[in-house]
Amino acid sequence: MDTKVHTAARSPLHDILAPASIAIIGASADPTKRGYKAMIGLIKDGYRGAIYPINPKIDMVLGVKTWASIDALPGPVDLALICTPAASVPGLLTECGRKGVKGAIVLASGFKETGPEGAKLEQQVLDAARAGGVRVIGPNTSGMFNLHKKVNLLALTNIKAGDVGFISQSGNMLLSLVLEAEHNGHVGFSTYVGPGNQTDVGFNDYLRYLGEDEHTRVATLYVEGFRDGQRFLQVAREISAVKPVVVYKSGSTEQGKKAASSHTGALAGSYAMTVDLLRQVGVSVVQHSNEILPVAEGLGLLQKAPGKRVAVISDGGGQATIASDRLTEAGLELAELSDETKRRLGAILFPQASLVNPVDVAGSSDANPALLAQCMEIVAEDENVDSVFLVGMFGGYSIRFAEDLLGGEMRGAESMIELARRSTKPIVVYSLYAPIKPPALRRLHEARLPVYTSIEYAVRVLAALGERGIYLQSRADDVLAPVVAPSEEMKSMFARAQNEGRDLFEFEAKALLRAHGVEVAPEVVVHHVEELAAVAAQFGDQLLVMKVVSKDILHKSDAGGVKLNLRGEAELREAFDRIMSSCHAYDPNADIRGVLVTPMAKKGTEVIIGVSRDPIFGPVLMFGLGGIFVEILEDVAFRAIPLSQHDAGSMVDQLKARKVLDGVRGEPPADKAALVDLLLKVSGIVTAYPQISELDLNPVIAYPEGYAAVDARIITNRSIL
Amino acid sequence: MDTKVHTAARSPLHDILAPASIAIIGASADPTKRGYKAMIGLIKDGYRGAIYPINPKIDMVLGVKTWASIDALPGPVDLALICTPAASVPGLLTECGRKGVKGAIVLASGFKETGPEGAKLEQQVLDAARAGGVRVIGPNTSGMFNLHKKVNLLALTNIKAGDVGFISQSGNMLLSLVLEAEHNGHVGFSTYVGPGNQTDVGFNDYLRYLGEDEHTRVATLYVEGFRDGQRFLQVAREISAVKPVVVYKSGSTEQGKKAASSHTGALAGSYAMTVDLLRQVGVSVVQHSNEILPVAEGLGLLQKAPGKRVAVISDGGGQATIASDRLTEAGLELAELSDETKRRLGAILFPQASLVNPVDVAGSSDANPALLAQCMEIVAEDENVDSVFLVGMFGGYSIRFAEDLLGGEMRGAESMIELARRSTKPIVVYSLYAPIKPPALRRLHEARLPVYTSIEYAVRVLAALGERGIYLQSRADDVLAPVVAPSEEMKSMFARAQNEGRDLFEFEAKALLRAHGVEVAPEVVVHHVEELAAVAAQFGDQLLVMKVVSKDILHKSDAGGVKLNLRGEAELREAFDRIMSSCHAYDPNADIRGVLVTPMAKKGTEVIIGVSRDPIFGPVLMFGLGGIFVEILEDVAFRAIPLSQHDAGSMVDQLKARKVLDGVRGEPPADKAALVDLLLKVSGIVTAYPQISELDLNPVIAYPEGYAAVDARIITNRSIL
Repeated sequence: MDTKVHTAARSPLHDILAPASIAIIGASADPTKRGYKAMIGLIKDGYRGAIYPINPKIDMVLGVKTWASIDALPGPVDLALICTPAASVPGLLTECGRKGVKGAIVLASGFKETGPEGAKLEQQVLDAARAGGVRVIGPNTSGMFNLHKKVNLLALTNIKAGDVGFISQSGNMLLSLVLEAEHNGHVGFSTYVGPGNQTDVGFNDYLRYLGEDEHTRVATLYVEGFRDGQRFLQVAREISAVKPVVVYKSGSTEQGKKAASSHTGALAGSYAMTVDLLRQVGVSVVQHSNEILPVAEGLGLLQKAPGKRVAVISDGGGQATIASDRLTEAGLELAELSDETKRRLGAILFPQASLVNPVDVAGSSDANPALLAQCMEIVAEDENVDSVFLVGMFGGYSIRFAEDLLGGEMRGAESMIELARRSTKPIVVYSLYAPIKPPALRRLHEARLPVYTSIEYAVRVLAALGERGIYLQSRADDVLAPVVAPSEEMKSMFARAQNEGRDLFEFEAKALLRAHGVEVAPEVVVHHVEELAAVAAQFGDQLLVMKVVSKDILHKSDAGGVKLNLRGEAELREAFDRIMSSCHAYDPNADIRGVLVTPMAKKGTEVIIGVSRDPIFGPVLMFGLGGIFVEILEDVAFRAIPLSQHDAGSMVDQLKARKVLDGVRGEPPADKAALVDLLLKVSGIVTAYPQISELDLNPVIAYPEGYAAVDARIITNRSIL
Repeated sequence: MDTKVHTAARSPLHDILAPASIAIIGASADPTKRGYKAMIGLIKDGYRGAIYPINPKIDMVLGVKTWASIDALPGPVDLALICTPAASVPGLLTECGRKGVKGAIVLASGFKETGPEGAKLEQQVLDAARAGGVRVIGPNTSGMFNLHKKVNLLALTNIKAGDVGFISQSGNMLLSLVLEAEHNGHVGFSTYVGPGNQTDVGFNDYLRYLGEDEHTRVATLYVEGFRDGQRFLQVAREISAVKPVVVYKSGSTEQGKKAASSHTGALAGSYAMTVDLLRQVGVSVVQHSNEILPVAEGLGLLQKAPGKRVAVISDGGGQATIASDRLTEAGLELAELSDETKRRLGAILFPQASLVNPVDVAGSSDANPALLAQCMEIVAEDENVDSVFLVGMFGGYSIRFAEDLLGGEMRGAESMIELARRSTKPIVVYSLYAPIKPPALRRLHEARLPVYTSIEYAVRVLAALGERGIYLQSRADDVLAPVVAPSEEMKSMFARAQNEGRDLFEFEAKALLRAHGVEVAPEVVVHHVEELAAVAAQFGDQLLVMKVVSKDILHKSDAGGVKLNLRGEAELREAFDRIMSSCHAYDPNADIRGVLVTPMAKKGTEVIIGVSRDPIFGPVLMFGLGGIFVEILEDVAFRAIPLSQHDAGSMVDQLKARKVLDGVRGEPPADKAALVDLLLKVSGIVTAYPQISELDLNPVIAYPEGYAAVDARIITNRSIL
C-alpha cells in the first residue's frame, strides 16, 4: 500500500524510559511517600544506573546520599521523577532544563483536570519544559516502569517482566491488569507509562516508543482522550504493521465522557467515530475492560491469523454450542471442513462423534485425551481452516476421569505445542479447568500457548487475530484515493465566496464536485424570469425542481424556496414567482441571487456523505444511508481522510443497513463500485482543497448503475483563501 | 396482577431429587465406570438413605451388598440411577414400574439426538415409564446432585453446598461453574440436574422443584431447547415472583442452533423471541456464559433492587469512567445525587473529589479506607439512589499503601455489612484486588456481600437486580388484556371459511377486528360493477383503494388486483374492469368474489402486528415498525399471549426505532396509548378465537390520534370449526 511511512528518527523516549540515571525530586524517608517508594522500587529491583535523591532537608534516603538541588548533582541526569506539589513544578522544570535533564515525570495532580486555574499552571509547566528542552510525562500521572531495565518507579512488587507494553490514563487499570496477570500467572509486562494529562508527551509518542521497544510484542493502551489524534493515527498505522496495537477507549457513552473529562481533562469525541478510525489503521479495539488482558496476551503470543475461519474441537456439545454462538456473533466463521478432513477425523473418533464443525468428539477422548491434539493437527492441515480452537475439559481429564490419564494429557500438550510451532495457524485453548491450572495447561502456558478461562475471552482473541491478519493482507495491495489537483478556477471560486463572507452556493459546490469527476445532475442557475423559456426548452419534458439561491436562506424548504415536479415554461414561471414572493416574505433582507433548476432525481436508494474536520482527528468522512438510518439508528461509518480503496469498500460493508444496498423486496442492488469511487473522489477533493471546512452530500441517490449527487453543501474555512 | 396462579400440588420431583433410597442399576467395581463413581459419591458424602447396587454378576461394590435385579430388592426405591446402555433402558423401566420406583435417571446417550432410530428407542423409554408410573430424568443426561441431602451421583468432589440451583443441558457447563465457584471460593450449589433430552421431565418441572426447594435461593438454567415452552412460561411467571430465575439460552445464532440440535436434539426457535418471552415472565436472561455464575450469585444474595438508579463510589477516575460507560450501556442510570447528599459527601472528602455521580474520592480514602463505607452510607440514604456500587481498590489499601491500613479496611467492611443489613438497596463491590482475596474482601464474602473481579460482571448483576425489582413492581399493578367474548356471528364466519376450505377474506378479517373494537377503515365489498355508483356516492370526494377479493389470489398487487387513488364513479368503473381482466389473465381459474373499496389511508407511521402459534411457546404476538425496520433490522418485540397492559407498553418501548414513534423531523408523536390498546385487543381476539392460526395487520398506520388497520390477513386453523 502506498502509505506515507514516516522514517522517523528513533523515539527520544528511549533515553527517558530506559534511563541511565534518575533523580528523585522530593525523595523522602517517609515510607508512605512516593519519594520513598520510588527509591525502594529502584533499589529492590536492582536498578543499575545512578540514583540521585534530591531533598535539601535530609542527608540520606535508604542509604543513598541526597543532594540539595538538581543544580548540585555531580553527573548528567536522564530522568527526573518530580514528587513535589503542583505549584513547585514549573520552577523545577526550569532547573531540569539548566541541568540538561532529558525527561521529567510529574506526578502531581491539580492541573487541567481541575479547571481554568489548573490549566494555567499546566501551561506554565509546558512553557518551562519547552524552554529547557525537557520532555514531560504527565502531569497527573501514576508514573512508569520499565521492567527489563529494572526501572520501577511505582514500587509495585511482584510484577512479572514480559511482552505486554501498557500505556494507561488510569493507574487503577494498570493495578487491575497487574493483579489479574499475577493471578493467572502467565502474562508479563515490559514498559508501563501513565500519560496523565499528556501536556507534552502524548499517546502517539508512547506508541512509537513501544513499537520500537524490542521487549514489547504487543502495545496496549487505555485511553480516556487523545490529544493529537491525527498524529496518533499515523503512528498507529506504522506500528500496527509491525506488532499488534490494542486500544481500550473509554467514553462510549455521554456519562462516561463526562467522568473521563473530570479525571484527566480528556476531550473525548464521538466514540463510534474513534473506534472506526482506530480500526482503519489496524488497531485492535477492545470494548470491555475485562477483555484487555486476554486480548493483549493472545495478540502478543500469536500475533495474527490468516483469516476468520475457525475450526472448533470440543469434548462436549454444550460448550461447542456456546462457542458456535459466540464465534458467529463476533463475525468469525465456523470453517467448512473438507471431506478429507472429515474422513480423517472419522477414522479416529467414535461413530457418535460430530464431524461437522464444531467437531464434538463425543466421548472419544475420555480414555485418551491426546486424541484431541490429533484432531487439532488434522483440522489445522485443512486449507479451509485459519485457526484452531480447543474447547472443553482438556487438562482436567486426569482430575475428572482417572489419574492415570495425566500421561495422555501431557503427551497431548506436547503435540499441541509442536503443532503450534510448525503451523502458521493460531491455536487457542479454552478449558473449564483453566482456573485451577492443572499440569497440562501449565505446560501449554510455559510453551507460550494461551489458555483461557472463558469461551467469550477466547473468542475475542480469535476475532482480534483474524481481524489483524485480514487487515495486514488488505494493506498489502491497497491503494490510496487518487490525488486531486486543485484547479485555479475552483480556487478563485472559493476566494470569491471568501470575499463575500459566505459559504459556497449549492451550484458552486456542485460545480466543484463536477469539476473533479463526481456525477452531479445537470442544472441551470436562473437570475431572471425571462431565462425560463430557454430552461424549459433545454430540459424538455423532464420533471424539474426549482430551489432558491441565497446565502441568507439556509432552510430553503421552510422559506418556501423549493418547488418540485415542474414541467414546461408556465409551471416554471409560476414557481419562480412563488419562490420569490415566499422568500422575500420569509426574510425581506435576504440577498436572493436567483433560482437553481435541475431535473427531479429518479428513485433509488438515498445515501449520505459528510466530511468534517474533527478537532482531534482532522478530516473525517462519514457515510451512511439516508433518513432514519442516520437520524434514528446512527448507522454510519467513519474513516479518516485520505481514504484507501479498502477503506471505502469497508465503509459500505460495515453498515447494518448494507442489505438495503444489496437490494430488498426484489429491487436490484445499488452500484457499490460507483459509491466506492465517489467516496474516494470526495476524499481526494477534501485533501486538495483546505478551503473546505465541511462538506455534505445529502442525499446522493444510488442506482443499479451509478449514482446522482442531488444536493451539496460546502462550508468554507474562512481562514484559507 | 390478575394472573392465573396455578395452585399446583407440590412437585413430585422432591421424592426423586431428595430420595430416601437409591438403586444403582449397573453398579460396578471398576473405578472408571459411572456405576462405581455414583456409589463412591454417595458413600463419601455420607448419604443417609438406603443404597441398592444392582449387578447380577458381582456380590459387593465398595462394601455394599449387590442385588441381582430391581425385583429382588428388599425395600421400596425412590430413585434408580440407570448406568446401562441405551437398548437396556425400556426393559429396566418396566421393571422399575413393577417395583414402584418413583423416578429413574437414564445416563445413556444414543436416543433422539442421534436420529430417527434413536428417537424410536426414546419413545419406547417414554412408553415404558408412563406405563409403570416412573418419572424419567434424561436420557442422555450427566446425572444430578442434591448437596443438602448428600446425594451426589456425579461423584464430583469439593462442591460447596449453597444457594444456587442449577439445571443444565450441558454437563461441561456444570463442571465449568463448579470449578469457577471453587476457584472464587464463595458460591455454593443446592441441586443440579441434567435434563438431557427431556423425554419426560422437562425444564418446567425442574423449575417448579427449584422454586419450591427451601435450599435454593436462585434457580439457574442452561437451556439448549425447551420442550413445552408454554408451560415453562407459566411456571417461570409463578416462580420468578418468589425467587430469581436465571436462564442462559444457547442458540443465539443459526450455527449455535445446529450445534445444539446435534447435542440434545433440541429444537431451538427464534432466539430473540425466546429472550423476549422469558423476560416477559420475569426471567433474568444472561447472554454470555461467563456471566452465568456472577449473575446467579448476585441475584441469589441480593434478590432485587428498587430500581435502576445506581450510585457509584470510586477511588480512581479511570474505573469510574468504565463503570459509567457500562452502566449506561446496560440500561442503568447514574443516580442524580441530591444537593444534601453532595453536601454531606463534600464535608468528608478532599476538595478535589468529584461529588457528581460517579463519585471519585480522589485520594480522600488513601489514608482512611473506611471513608468509602461512609460515602456508601450517605448515598444509600439518598432517595434518588436504588443501589450502591463501590469501584476500585477496596481490600487492597493495606497492600498498595501501608500495612497498617488493614484495620481501617476491616472497619470499612463491617460498616458495609451493617449498611447492607439495614438497607433495602443492594450493595455491589468491584475490587481490582478481588482476584487475590485480601482479608477485607473475604470478610465481605463471609457476610454474603458479593465482590466481583470485573466491572462488567458487577454491572450485569446490578442490571439484573434493577430489572427484577422493576418487573416485580410492574406485576403488582398490572392487568391482563380484557377478555373478549367470541360472537356467534363471527364463529359462523369462521365455519363458512372452513367449509369452503379457505382462510378469511380480508374483509372478513377486518369485520372480526371491527366487531371487537379495532379501528378499521370503512369499506364496501362490491360484487357487481353496477354497485359502484352507490359506492362513489357513499365516499364522496375521498381518494379510494380497490382490491380484488379472491381466495385464490394471494399476491394481489402482482395480479394487478389493486388500484390506488380512485375518485368518482368513472374511475371506480374503469378500475373494476381492469382488476377483473388482469386477475382473470393472472389466474383463469381464480374464484373471484368481487372487489373491496376503502378510502386511502392518511399518511402516518407504519407499524405491523403479527400473531402466530409457536410450536414451542404457543400464541405469540409480534410488534414492530414496518418496512426496513422489520425486514432489514429485525427490530421487533415479542410477547406471549395473553398480554398484560405492561407487556403491551413495554413492547413499544423496547423497539430501537421507538424514536420514530416519538416523532422525528418535527412530526408529532404517534398515539402510543392507542397502539397499546390495539395490542391488547388483538391479544384478546386471538385468545377468544382458537380458529385463528395466524394473524397479520400489515400495515397499521399510527397517527397522532388513533390508528387505522389498513390491511388484515387471518389464516384459519382448519382443525377448529
